[in-house]
Formats: sequence, C-alpha cells, structure tokens
Amino acid sequence: MNLTLLINCQDQSGIIHSVTGFISRKGGNVIYLDQHVDKQAEVFFMRLESEFDVDLNLDTFKGEFINEVANAYKMKWNLYDEGERPRMGIFVSKYNHCLYDLLSRHNSGELQVDIPFILSNHTDLEYVAEQFKIPFFHIPVTKETKSVAEQEQLKLLRDYNVDFIVLARYMQIISSKIIDVFPNRIINIHHSFLPAFVGAKPYHAAFERGVKIIGATSHYVTEDLDAGPIIEQDVATVSHTHSVKDFLAKGRDLEKIVLSRAVKLHVTHKTMVYNNKTVIFS
Amino acid sequence: MNLTLLINCQDQSGIIHSVTGFISRKGGNVIYLDQHVDKQAEVFFMRLESEFDVDLNLDTFKGEFINEVANAYKMKWNLYDEGERPRMGIFVSKYNHCLYDLLSRHNSGELQVDIPFILSNHTDLEYVAEQFKIPFFHIPVTKETKSVAEQEQLKLLRDYNVDFIVLARYMQIISSKIIDVFPNRIINIHHSFLPAFVGAKPYHAAFERGVKIIGATSHYVTEDLDAGPIIEQDVATVSHTHSVKDFLAKGRDLEKIVLSRAVKLHVTHKTMVYNNKTVIFS
Amino acid sequence: MNLTLLINCQDQSGIIHSVTGFISRKGGNVIYLDQHVDKQAEVFFMRLESEFDVDLNLDTFKGEFINEVANAYKMKWNLYDEGERPRMGIFVSKYNHCLYDLLSRHNSGELQVDIPFILSNHTDLEYVAEQFKIPFFHIPVTKETKSVAEQEQLKLLRDYNVDFIVLARYMQIISSKIIDVFPNRIINIHHSFLPAFVGAKPYHAAFERGVKIIGATSHYVTEDLDAGPIIEQDVATVSHTHSVKDFLAKGRDLEKIVLSRAVKLHVTHKTMVYNNKTVIFS
Amino acid sequence: MNLTLLINCQDQSGIIHSVTGFISRKGGNVIYLDQHVDKQAEVFFMRLESEFDVDLNLDTFKGEFINEVANAYKMKWNLYDEGERPRMGIFVSKYNHCLYDLLSRHNSGELQVDIPFILSNHTDLEYVAEQFKIPFFHIPVTKETKSVAEQEQLKLLRDYNVDFIVLARYMQIISSKIIDVFPNRIINIHHSFLPAFVGAKPYHAAFERGVKIIGATSHYVTEDLDAGPIIEQDVATVSHTHSVKDFLAKGRDLEKIVLSRAVKLHVTHKTMVYNNKTVIFS
Repeated sequence: MNLTLLINCQDQSGIIHSVTGFISRKGGNVIYLDQHVDKQAEVFFMRLESEFDVDLNLDTFKGEFINEVANAYKMKWNLYDEGERPRMGIFVSKYNHCLYDLLSRHNSGELQVDIPFILSNHTDLEYVAEQFKIPFFHIPVTKETKSVAEQEQLKLLRDYNVDFIVLARYMQIISSKIIDVFPNRIINIHHSFLPAFVGAKPYHAAFERGVKIIGATSHYVTEDLDAGPIIEQDVATVSHTHSVKDFLAKGRDLEKIVLSRAVKLHVTHKTMVYNNKTVIFS
Repeated sequence: MNLTLLINCQDQSGIIHSVTGFISRKGGNVIYLDQHVDKQAEVFFMRLESEFDVDLNLDTFKGEFINEVANAYKMKWNLYDEGERPRMGIFVSKYNHCLYDLLSRHNSGELQVDIPFILSNHTDLEYVAEQFKIPFFHIPVTKETKSVAEQEQLKLLRDYNVDFIVLARYMQIISSKIIDVFPNRIINIHHSFLPAFVGAKPYHAAFERGVKIIGATSHYVTEDLDAGPIIEQDVATVSHTHSVKDFLAKGRDLEKIVLSRAVKLHVTHKTMVYNNKTVIFS
Repeated sequence: MNLTLLINCQDQSGIIHSVTGFISRKGGNVIYLDQHVDKQAEVFFMRLESEFDVDLNLDTFKGEFINEVANAYKMKWNLYDEGERPRMGIFVSKYNHCLYDLLSRHNSGELQVDIPFILSNHTDLEYVAEQFKIPFFHIPVTKETKSVAEQEQLKLLRDYNVDFIVLARYMQIISSKIIDVFPNRIINIHHSFLPAFVGAKPYHAAFERGVKIIGATSHYVTEDLDAGPIIEQDVATVSHTHSVKDFLAKGRDLEKIVLSRAVKLHVTHKTMVYNNKTVIFS
Repeated sequence: MNLTLLINCQDQSGIIHSVTGFISRKGGNVIYLDQHVDKQAEVFFMRLESEFDVDLNLDTFKGEFINEVANAYKMKWNLYDEGERPRMGIFVSKYNHCLYDLLSRHNSGELQVDIPFILSNHTDLEYVAEQFKIPFFHIPVTKETKSVAEQEQLKLLRDYNVDFIVLARYMQIISSKIIDVFPNRIINIHHSFLPAFVGAKPYHAAFERGVKIIGATSHYVTEDLDAGPIIEQDVATVSHTHSVKDFLAKGRDLEKIVLSRAVKLHVTHKTMVYNNKTVIFS
C-alpha cells in the first residue's frame, strides 16, 4: 500500500532524519520526498510518499507516528492512503464548460475521485448530470431562502459523505456555515488573475482597463471573497481586437484548465495551506 | 520614402476607400494596412504604411491630406517619415537592468532612436552612461526640490529636443508639469501585473498574497498613478519555493523585456491611445 | 446579412481601394479588414467582413465581383455568408478528451457548426456520441480493409454533405483519396510541437530527449505525414519530475485547446493557406 | 559556511536517512533537500544544502562522507562551498545580446561568478569587453587553423583556471578536445526549440515551416551537435505577419533570457546530468 504524509511544524533540526527513520522502521520505502522551509515564518513543510509491501493497520501506524515522531516536533500532519478515492461534490450554476471538463476527466480515469452528486441553484445543467448519470440536486437560492438552502446543502454533503467541494462556476457566495465544515476543502475558480478584478464581472473590468493579458485563479474558499489561498493560476494574451465576448470565450478555456489542475493537486494531496498561502508540491 | 499614417475618427462608411485612394493619387503604394473599430465607442482606427519612389514635400502632402480626406471625416491623424529617428530621453534611478537592455539594443541597431541623454536622481548609474558614451545628467529630487528639479528636467528635454521619455525604473512620480508636455509620450515600466499591486513594492505584495504568477506592465504615464494606457504586459510563474528576492530577480527579466517591447512599438508608431486604452497594431 | 471575403493574388497597387469601392457600390459597409503581404512570395492576402442591410442574391453578387474586381487582379477568392453553419464531420479513435471538448463547445453555442456524425475505427467512444445524441458510425480499418473503409468514409462524407473534417485524435493516416476531396479542409491535432517529433509516440520521444517544454500542433492534413500547414500551436512546461504518463496528461490539455482553437479559426474563415503555410487573421 | 551536496546512485532504501544523519552528526543543519528518483533507470538524485556555524575542513569532511555514507551506496557526488565563486569563460562571435545580458547581470551582482576573459574568433565585440573592463582574446578559427586554435583556447582555459564555459552565441563547433576537459561544463544556447531545427539557420527553417511558436534551448555541449542534455527552454509566439528578421529579433530576447537562466542554474549547482538528460532542482 502507498501512504502519503503531509507535515508542517516549526522549523527544527533533524525532522527529515527522524521521519525517514520512522518509515524505515515500519518497513516502508520512501518513494518521494519534498520539503520546504518558509524562512520568514520559520515553518517546515514536508510531503512524503512511501510504499509498504504489506497492508498496515492505519490506526496503529498513526498512533506510533504520534508517539515516536509527531509529538516531539509538535507537528500538524495528515496521512492518506492512496488507494482511497476522495468524494467530490460539485456545485454549478448555469455555465457548463468547467462541469464538462471535470466530468470528462473523471470519465477517462484521469480524475480519481467519486462524484456523489452535482448540485445547482438552477436546473440548466441537469441534462449534463443526466448525460453522465450522476445524481443532480436543485436547491434554489434567494436572499430569503439562503439560510434554508445552506441547511439543505449541508445535509446533502453529510448524507453523501462528501470530502471536498468544487465550485465549478457556482455563482453564489459560500457562507461560513459551510466553510467552517470544509476548511481548505472548497475549491473555487475565479475568472480573473487575482488579486486583480475581485468580485463580479471581472472580464468586463479587464476589458475596461485595457489589459493585454487575462487570467483565471483557483483558490480555497475563505470568508473573504476571492481572497483565499491561491492554488493555481494561468493567463492568456488578449488585444484591442478582442471584445468582452472574446474575453469570456478565452476565459472559459483558462477557467476549466486551471480548475481541473487545482482539483488534481488537491486530490493527490499536493497542497498545504499556511498563512493564507499554499505550498504546492511537485 | 516610407510614410506611416495613424488615423482615428468616428466610424463611418468609406474611410479605407478614401484614404487608399488618396495614397494612390499621390503615387504611393500601400505596403501595410490594419484597421480596428471599437464598436462600443464607435471609433475607427487605422495604421497605414506606404512607400513612394520619390521624396515628397511633407508639408504639401499634409495640406492635401487635410483638404482631400481628413476634414471630411473629422480625423485625428499623425504622419511619420520612417527615415527619421525619434529622440528618446531615458530617466533612471539605481537599477541597471532596463537601462543596459535599452542601450544594448540601441547599440546593435535594433532600436532605431537617438538617445540625447540619460537623467537620474542618483549617480549610481553614471558609469553605465560612460560605458556607452551617452551624456548623463544628475538631478536630485527631494520633496523640497521637486518643483525646481522638474524645471531643470523640462529645460533639458527642450534643449535636447526629446520626442519621448522612457522611465527605465525611475522611482519618482512624474507630475502633470511634464506629463502635459509629453502626453502619451512617457513610457513607464511597472513591476507588477496591473491593475494588481499598484504603487510601491509590488513584488512584496505579490509574495504576501501568495500568487503563482507575477508580471510586469509597460504603460503610458498619466496623472493617475500606474493607471495609464497599457502598452504591453508579460508574466512569469512563481511558486512557494521562491523568496521575495527570487520574485525580484524573475521580475527584472520581465521588466526589461516588456519595457523594450513597448519602446519598440512606440518607436515604430504601432500604438494609438483612446479612452485610456491602447490599440497596438501588428 | 454579413459576408466574409477571403482573397489572395499577386501583390499589386490598388487592390484594397478597388475591393472596398466594390463593397461600397453594392451598399455594404466594411466592418473588418485585415491584409497581409508575403514579400518573399509577392502575394497579397485579405480578409474583409462587410454587412448589408438587405439580403443579397449571392450568385449575382459573385458574378459582379468577378467582372468588376477579381478578374482584373487574377484573384483567388472565397465568399462566405456568416449566417450559414458549416457541417463538421468528426473522426475519432479511442481517446475522448478532444471529442468531449468539441461537443461541449458545440453544446454551449461556442462552436457554430452542425455535426452530422462522429466516425470511428473503434466502438469505444460510441457512448459519447449517445450522450450527445449525435449519429455514430463504426468503420473498422485494417491494412486489408483500408481501401474499402475509405470508400465507406467518402460515401458518408458525401451523403451527409460534410464541409470539413476534424481528426480529434483519429490515429489512422488519411490517404490522398480523401485529402483530394477535402483540400485544406481536414484539421488534425498532432501531439507534439511540430516539426519536432513527427509520427507515432511523440510524448515518449520528448521524454527520451529530456525536453523542458512539450507542445501540440493543429494543422491541415496533406499527403506528407504531420507536415501540412500549421494553424495553431501551444506548449506546456515539463520537468524531470514528470513521467511519460504526466506528459500524456499535460498533452491532453494542450491537444484539446489547440484543436478547438484551430477549428474555431477555420469555422470563422480566418485561415488562408499558401505555400504550405497559413495566414491566420485576427 | 553553506555547503551544497549533489548525489546520484542506484535507488536504494535509507539514503535520505543516512545522508541527513551524517550532516547532523557533523553539526550541520539541512536548509534545503530535494530528491528525485528516475524509476525507469532506477537512479536516485539528491540536492542538499546545509549550513554550519563553524568553518569546516573540507578535505576531512569529504573523507568522512566517503567512509560513512558514499561508499556504502556507491554514490557519485560533488560538494560545493557556496562561498566560492566559479570562474566562467565566455566565448562569443559577433552577436552582442547574450554577452551584454551576462555582463550586466554580473555587474549588478545577480550572477555570482568571476569572468577571467571573453574569447572570440572575431574582434567585433572587443569593444564590449573594454566597456566592462574584462580581458579579451581574439583567436581566429579557420578550417586550417582549427586545431591550433583549440590548443590556444585550452591553454587560456588552463592558465585562467576556468571552471566552466559559456558559448554566448559562439558560432563554431566545439570539438571533443575541449569537451573532454569540460564534460557537462560547457553551456550553449541554440536558437531553436530543440530537437526541432538542429544546426545552422534555425529561424530561417522555422519561417519556412510556418510554425506559430519559436524557441531557444540551452544545453550542455556534447559531441553530437545540438543534442546534449537540455537545461532550459523557452518559446515565443509568432505569426504570418513576422518576417525572418522579426523571428531573429524575437529570438534574441529568448536566447539571452534562456542562456542566463541556464547559467544561473549551473552556477548555483542546481543541475545534474544523467542519460543525456538533466535533473533541474528548484
């Protein structure tokens, strides 16, 4: 079995030596190790993949890791069994490009997740869910019903054991009620090169400003709008010949690629969050 | 002789037909024509290069163009003789990378301009001016002397017949006294992907925000800080492994390339400004 | 109605004046004009969009254009009514990423074509055709049956009035029998940065060579394998940390974006072919 | 003092644990560790930076490393004292852009090397050497004198204790006489996106082929022309509007940036060569 370990703690001497020693004692072989030190914050980050010839009892393994390593360094850590597929809930609104992109990657085996449902505040994309035979839930959201809608969303997320949420151009603001339950586990795609053009209609704003490059940004959702830890960004060149409609079309290509990359990084446990920034392992 | 004509006016029928007819009647041959219509603003833009076997009297030519074409369409226009080299004043502060880049391009004939002088508020780069045998003027700027300094700058710009100014990482704000004399003829390089990170220390701000891409922007200087018409932008990827110092180093490469591209576009009369945006011809 | 005119001929004086005069006489308004002169080959290229308040008789219009303009300059030209949707036949094999990308763009109205059928030498992707309710034809190809298969393909292309063909990762070589019927109307996506890595398994070859950037290339199919006129290319960075499998995954994203861009350029009549190269209008 | 250790050996269990243990026993602190396993070749690569509060005797340290670690794993390794500046010999021909770029980076402290001399087969760039007060040697090369010229080059390289050579657009082929003395220590810039357009006049070939993207490649020189391990590549978009001259101008910007990046990677000991490919550490 293959295990991935994500660690962060205060930077100290001997951490790598200690962790690799533990893996070795348990009969594992390190097949990937990358570490990073944030010198300003004096924090150490590590991602380590190891393979074991036999299947381990994970609870025992975790207990031993705490006693033999983690406590001594006051580590925050997570352990993932690479054989387990995370469960990804998808929220959409009316645009289909990100949704199609995620579903076709899922379909071809590129995206190793289970998709328990697609949820939307509209019914426009129900037909896509049907095409791919995935349960679809319609939860309308208005100013008045927002609070009730969130209760319904939370119930669905709980009932279907969702591990993380992807906002595939879901045009509603997510409140702390849901964010608190899924900290650093809600991935949004914002259709601008953040921090430029926060909020609504960023392509229109970019057009007005006369920029020569537009972008898209995928980030973890926090309570500050479009201000969460950035996972991935990409850009495309534009010129005076492009209308707002052209910006939108170019942007769609950016959005779907950038969102899918971010989702893949999350699913393969290559992201860590610290100080509202991400460490993205290779 | 080769002439370049830049035109803008309200969008109307028959403009191209009328201008190309004029060029033809004067014995010229159109060797390049590109046009653009801003449909929102209903403005027509055109860049036209033509070659003439004989040397024309430009004053006569201009007079005829006004009478036969420009007046009818209420055109704003400029005519450039491609045989004339514009005179480019360079303002610098302490960083040498943009300056070296401009001078080495000038040196190799890539940049067809005359450089009457390099001006700085510091003496750090005097040695570069000496290396390239270009006059260097040191005009210190403090809060108290700013007004006097600007008078000296204006005198130099006038005495040396400067056509346009390049701020090659000149770290001072240019006031309207100078901008008014050189409208859309002062080119700045800002070390961020505008409109993100306006103002001082953009790389530090980008680092704090945890962006995955940094940029540089060259624009014409207007009275609003870092808000003038954008000529050129470019970006580079960064990651958590890069320190602010790495951002600065990557940024230097962006800055010099982006600034030089913008200068070349300006010098070859491929830029037009409208509504605080640029039309950049190919 | 909006008409698009594509023209090429030997470079001569007065062409633009003559064509814009014709459009004007017929009551049209030029809404886009771009031209290019290949100075080496001395060939003139032009793309002109015009709008007419009334619907024209296109046959009459074409006849007049021949008599009043085209003959005098010995032009090759094509006229397109932008209201007509071209009919796009799709050939696939076993990979679904390019197919899904084309179909989702078609679905959202981004790609203004009709898709009469999807054809494959395998049945793997029949389910995708079913998802999108598009006729699917299975024509197996072996060395022995290749000639018969081509006859069947040609019959389908004729029966369904196909205007152009998109090879969306169709892994078979197209022979001159089909190319001759669809000159510069078969668009292929090759999974390398041509002319590097022509032929089979380009990602494996790129991996072996240790390149730091991989690419994808969309081109019109000619009889020389992977040597036809290039329409569009794009690249992505790779490193020693990427396996061949990673190259393949990164490449899929390139392939689908590059192919879709090329198809859109073709559909909007922005491509012209000359000397085995393309002119791509903005 | 800061030491950088580069290691490669057959992939085995326990290497990281063993090396980090050694560093710790000698009183050092690991400040950077990155490793890579080439699974096909079953080779392990590691780059480790460590800091020591006291200055070590490097010979003793190396001896202990051999006995306590390296021998057991049959490692190939190199140890670098980051306080030492490598000595970089520059070979040029007639183009000045790469030379100016390297010298201005050296000048501003970005490139931490000593430059004992600039060598050329022409005298065109002697003035640049004078501008920067660096010794210049003119060694003409003809078919007849090539062998003698190489003897002179080798003598200079030896006399000036050159550590590595940068071919900053030196247009001559380097023979094995010199390569054998500087294995993986001669850095070339080739003005194409290798492996496309090997050999002379790549921009002309790219123009003929009608590519939409051009590139530049920096690689270590081996006996096979333009086929050595690639260190760094970058690309720029081109279109039908660009002439060969435009390709050359765009290419110059690529060449100087790509070459300088490769030189910096080499100087900071972030490159390892294996199977004619590079591992580039972050």
